[in-house]
Amino acid sequence: MSVTAAQGFEASGVHAGLRKAAPDLALVRSVESAVGAALFTVNRVQAAPVVVSKRALAAADPQAVVVNSAVANAATGADGERAAEATAERAAELLGLEPEQVLVLSTGVIGVPLPLAKVLAGLETAAAELSSSGGASAAHAILTTDTHAKQASAVGDGFSVGGMAKGAGMIHPCLATMLAVVTTDYPLGADEADAFLRAAVAESFNAISVDGECSTNDTVVLLANGASGLDRSYETDVAFGEALHAVCADLARQIVTDGEGATVLLEIDVAGAATDGEAQAIARRIATSPLVKTAAFGHDPNWGRVLAAAGSATSNGGFARLEPDLLTVSFNGTAVFDRGAPSGSVPALDGAACRIELDLGLGSGQASYLASDLSYGYVRVNAEYHT
Amino acid sequence: MSVTAAQGFEASGVHAGLRKAAPDLALVRSVESAVGAALFTVNRVQAAPVVVSKRALAAADPQAVVVNSAVANAATGADGERAAEATAERAAELLGLEPEQVLVLSTGVIGVPLPLAKVLAGLETAAAELSSSGGASAAHAILTTDTHAKQASAVGDGFSVGGMAKGAGMIHPCLATMLAVVTTDYPLGADEADAFLRAAVAESFNAISVDGECSTNDTVVLLANGASGLDRSYETDVAFGEALHAVCADLARQIVTDGEGATVLLEIDVAGAATDGEAQAIARRIATSPLVKTAAFGHDPNWGRVLAAAGSATSNGGFARLEPDLLTVSFNGTAVFDRGAPSGSVPALDGAACRIELDLGLGSGQASYLASDLSYGYVRVNAEYHT
Repeated sequence: MSVTAAQGFEASGVHAGLRKAAPDLALVRSVESAVGAALFTVNRVQAAPVVVSKRALAAADPQAVVVNSAVANAATGADGERAAEATAERAAELLGLEPEQVLVLSTGVIGVPLPLAKVLAGLETAAAELSSSGGASAAHAILTTDTHAKQASAVGDGFSVGGMAKGAGMIHPCLATMLAVVTTDYPLGADEADAFLRAAVAESFNAISVDGECSTNDTVVLLANGASGLDRSYETDVAFGEALHAVCADLARQIVTDGEGATVLLEIDVAGAATDGEAQAIARRIATSPLVKTAAFGHDPNWGRVLAAAGSATSNGGFARLEPDLLTVSFNGTAVFDRGAPSGSVPALDGAACRIELDLGLGSGQASYLASDLSYGYVRVNAEYHT
Repeated sequence: MSVTAAQGFEASGVHAGLRKAAPDLALVRSVESAVGAALFTVNRVQAAPVVVSKRALAAADPQAVVVNSAVANAATGADGERAAEATAERAAELLGLEPEQVLVLSTGVIGVPLPLAKVLAGLETAAAELSSSGGASAAHAILTTDTHAKQASAVGDGFSVGGMAKGAGMIHPCLATMLAVVTTDYPLGADEADAFLRAAVAESFNAISVDGECSTNDTVVLLANGASGLDRSYETDVAFGEALHAVCADLARQIVTDGEGATVLLEIDVAGAATDGEAQAIARRIATSPLVKTAAFGHDPNWGRVLAAAGSATSNGGFARLEPDLLTVSFNGTAVFDRGAPSGSVPALDGAACRIELDLGLGSGQASYLASDLSYGYVRVNAEYHT
């Protein structure tokens, strides 16, 4: 049920002193050599650990991951990069690896220098405490204002996948960051790891929204060490792909459910679009609409706002195709707007889930998105911090 | 100071019974023939009055505008279009015009049929009460949950421009709508009216954001009747363009200041971008960032969020160009992030204005945007309505 669920992985989480009392430094490694892949934020402003980890990944197969919370090491210039490199170097030294085999992830305050001495000292403890049962400790050490640790695992026929993530917790003076580390004992080549990870992320971490923001630090890492000794076939590849997707989707859902101020989980399903891409653009637009999200917070099946959001979705520089007269909108399974006209039905939305289905009636394009609502709590956590 | 500021325009605002007690139907007309132009929402879901007014504008020069509040006449199908047409027909009859010379604007609840009998009866009163001092009455009749009427005017050398607008007021089960009617006695041809209006709107109504939503009903109308009798020249054209822009900018600023739950006016100025288009994309991204807007509500000069928003701005399908090391961010005139490094300064932001300047240091592209903050009040007005 954790990042150490797969064979041959160890982890630890320690208190390095970056946060006052909570654990703040996690280490994950494969005992034997591994391959890996990672996907990084597309923000033009990229944190030092993102820059350094990209470089490392281009140079060598990764075998370990260091994650610190409290300080994002973003907008910290050349000193920030040197601090991220020094972190990787020290971890490599302690684990008998090359620095390029260590990926470094950070989350926390932007613009504050990484307290490097504390990180380096903490790494010694973290390396000493590595164990195959250390997944839960690691999962706690990467949190910020998340209210609980996020872990997931899946067991296939002869292999396992495990992972941990942190979600949308506000860190002053900064922003939410999404980090995830997923491990498997399934045997993969490096290029394969990348392809499997991209496919899994597209329908999990890339299909969620808490507030539509894109952080300087977002990173998802996959390490694969082949420790299962499995003989691969087409069938096992399919099973592995499904297991990896299940773990990523589970972690993604946990992130949304624990989003800042979240009280309602919005599940948005768009069907009947001209293309999958246009369906995704519409689903994303609905998922990031403040008016839809405040309506969800108010348990209001407000189809007018859904229509207006869908009608303003852009895809490839134009508007996503949509014919108002063909639209059907359902809330929690009840059609409230049926092929261009109000149905007169008003479903109760008193639970913690709000499923919005939009059928465009145009083609076979479809997409799904998960989102949190927009509540007083979101405003509170993001406004009531002062410099 | 109103939509009747220019010579030869009359207006009225009456209670047609669409709202319980407040005035809800406005009429504006030029006494003599006029030309006009209008810009409409780009939302794919367009209200019936938008469809009908576009058709009218293509067929004839407009001379009058009817605006009702309370009911948006959107997502109402063929019946909705017939109701909008009937409204234009009755107004034309009362004013001695062709139906195509009357533009119809609506704002209010989506998906509810327009109470046509009330509108038609109200039009008789509105026509009877038309007067050159009726601008203020008209401005009140078009409001929804705006907290006050929005009017502006400008006087040039021999001509006048006047206008009224309504802004972001939540109408259940629906969305904010921006409507504006601007009149002038400056002599213009129809094509010229369109060109002047587009230029003025680009830097006023199109450079503001309350919540990033795009309504089904947004419309801006310009009527020009030439009643000033002015002889035009290049100089008077420049002066008219400036006056028109001043009126539009004034109304736009009033809309943002009176935005739903607004407590802080965000003025965002982006300079040094590679192009004006990229500057605008970055300014818009900052203006619609929930994290920047909650920080403004919390009076927090949170440059980390500004950087992250800027870094994720897209323009023409790619990311707007940006070099983190060249960036400078200022809050209310104090640089907090100076050419890639925190300056250490923390300006107080205790007032009702928050000016964010971002210099990209790349080129000469620039853009400005006005936005409201994201407050508890925004969530309240948009969540605490129930179907």
